[in-house]
Amino acid sequence: MHEPLTSLQNPKVKELIRWQAKSRQRIKDQVIIVEGIKENQLALQSGLHAQKFFVQEGLFHHQIQLPQKSIIYTVSSTVFERIAYRGTTGGIIGIYSAPNRQLEDFSWTAPSLFMVLESVEKPGNLGAVLRSADAAAATAVIICDPKTDIFNPNVVRSSLGTVFTTPVFTCTTQEWLEYAEKHAINNFATHLNADSVSLYSQNYTQNTAFILGTESTGLTDQWINQGHTIIKIPMQGSIDSLNVSNAAAICLFEAVRQREVGH
Amino acid sequence: MHEPLTSLQNPKVKELIRWQAKSRQRIKDQVIIVEGIKENQLALQSGLHAQKFFVQEGLFHHQIQLPQKSIIYTVSSTVFERIAYRGTTGGIIGIYSAPNRQLEDFSWTAPSLFMVLESVEKPGNLGAVLRSADAAAATAVIICDPKTDIFNPNVVRSSLGTVFTTPVFTCTTQEWLEYAEKHAINNFATHLNADSVSLYSQNYTQNTAFILGTESTGLTDQWINQGHTIIKIPMQGSIDSLNVSNAAAICLFEAVRQREVGH
Repeated sequence: MHEPLTSLQNPKVKELIRWQAKSRQRIKDQVIIVEGIKENQLALQSGLHAQKFFVQEGLFHHQIQLPQKSIIYTVSSTVFERIAYRGTTGGIIGIYSAPNRQLEDFSWTAPSLFMVLESVEKPGNLGAVLRSADAAAATAVIICDPKTDIFNPNVVRSSLGTVFTTPVFTCTTQEWLEYAEKHAINNFATHLNADSVSLYSQNYTQNTAFILGTESTGLTDQWINQGHTIIKIPMQGSIDSLNVSNAAAICLFEAVRQREVGH
Repeated sequence: MHEPLTSLQNPKVKELIRWQAKSRQRIKDQVIIVEGIKENQLALQSGLHAQKFFVQEGLFHHQIQLPQKSIIYTVSSTVFERIAYRGTTGGIIGIYSAPNRQLEDFSWTAPSLFMVLESVEKPGNLGAVLRSADAAAATAVIICDPKTDIFNPNVVRSSLGTVFTTPVFTCTTQEWLEYAEKHAINNFATHLNADSVSLYSQNYTQNTAFILGTESTGLTDQWINQGHTIIKIPMQGSIDSLNVSNAAAICLFEAVRQREVGH
């Protein structure tokens, strides 16, 4: 280690601040910024390539094993406070190369369990869905909106790092439909309409994908009235929508339950 | 209606801004601030007493029926932008008298379904739990922390107004234990330890209460090793905790499922 960096004008520090301020630049440079001990641990365990680390002088004590020959910049507490979003990061920020994963190259064992989100309105919701997907040992989370910034720092944070443990792919709805057909995955689209049947009436012990629309606009027409199985979470209250991550959790764990105790 | 109020110095506007800035003052004055068409509709339907309304000139067109003889202040768009948190409120903010509900006076029909939170770390999480509780037609949500500010504007907003449709009570953990014993309610405390059994192994078709601790510290000792039934949501991932509102949703809807299709 060297003398701690104390200047916000240091080029490495400036580059990081720029990535944080401009997600377009971060995406263009294909990097992921990961804050926190546990989050970096999960990123490393998932096999991501670490480019470098920023650690706070006096706060980071190698609570996790960093790869040998890692580039580590020790920075002063003043600099770290500027580059960290949270107070409870354990004094480490890692910069990783964004993986370029393709759904077609992805291998999994049956019975699979996919959570397909047509789009994501809030990074915090995606983070919470990823935690549930991790807990349910879901095969992958699919986001049918290629513009979604999966590795947005808010997603990394709210997922507690599970964005690295659960495979996440983006594609179009049409691409998902073709993939599901090719791989014999049963799509269950959640929607409230006259044709929808109770979540609890279907069998999720085979290859399963749950499809969730957005909270504000629901599923797109590519799902409705197209012959897909439409399920609903039976709701008995004053409002007709659940938080999207809660709806995802209820569906995923119904599959977990059926696989544990039977349909 | 009168000429719109155009000044932030108007005493009624100043009073509202003070309540928004100082929750202590709002709690002392026993008022609830409710923003949005749907949210005010649910507050009115729940029987809350409306003290007055602020509506934006030109934006609010009586999309909901306000009580006769309501005090309505029409304000300019400049003033409304200052007093509204959100852009999509439909131009209405209602001020209501906070209800003084006591758990002991509350009547319900069996089988009941209570969600008991030992404490709440984030208003947004409580809001999401309330949406699930509403959807599951839960009997009530109990918060074992008398200091919790149930009618925090963030709770009202993130609950989409279901804080008014689902009864919410605060009490101490000891008070809940006594209430549950007196009313023959089965407590199921969620916790990961050696004694915990799967969520899916228990019967929730009788009077049921799920007890959830906080995400950061879990349940208090008043629940653990005290002979209560300890259940766990079976988790198979890299991290050992779900978002608290997702855990609540999974538990509540397992009870819904059992009551729909049997244990």
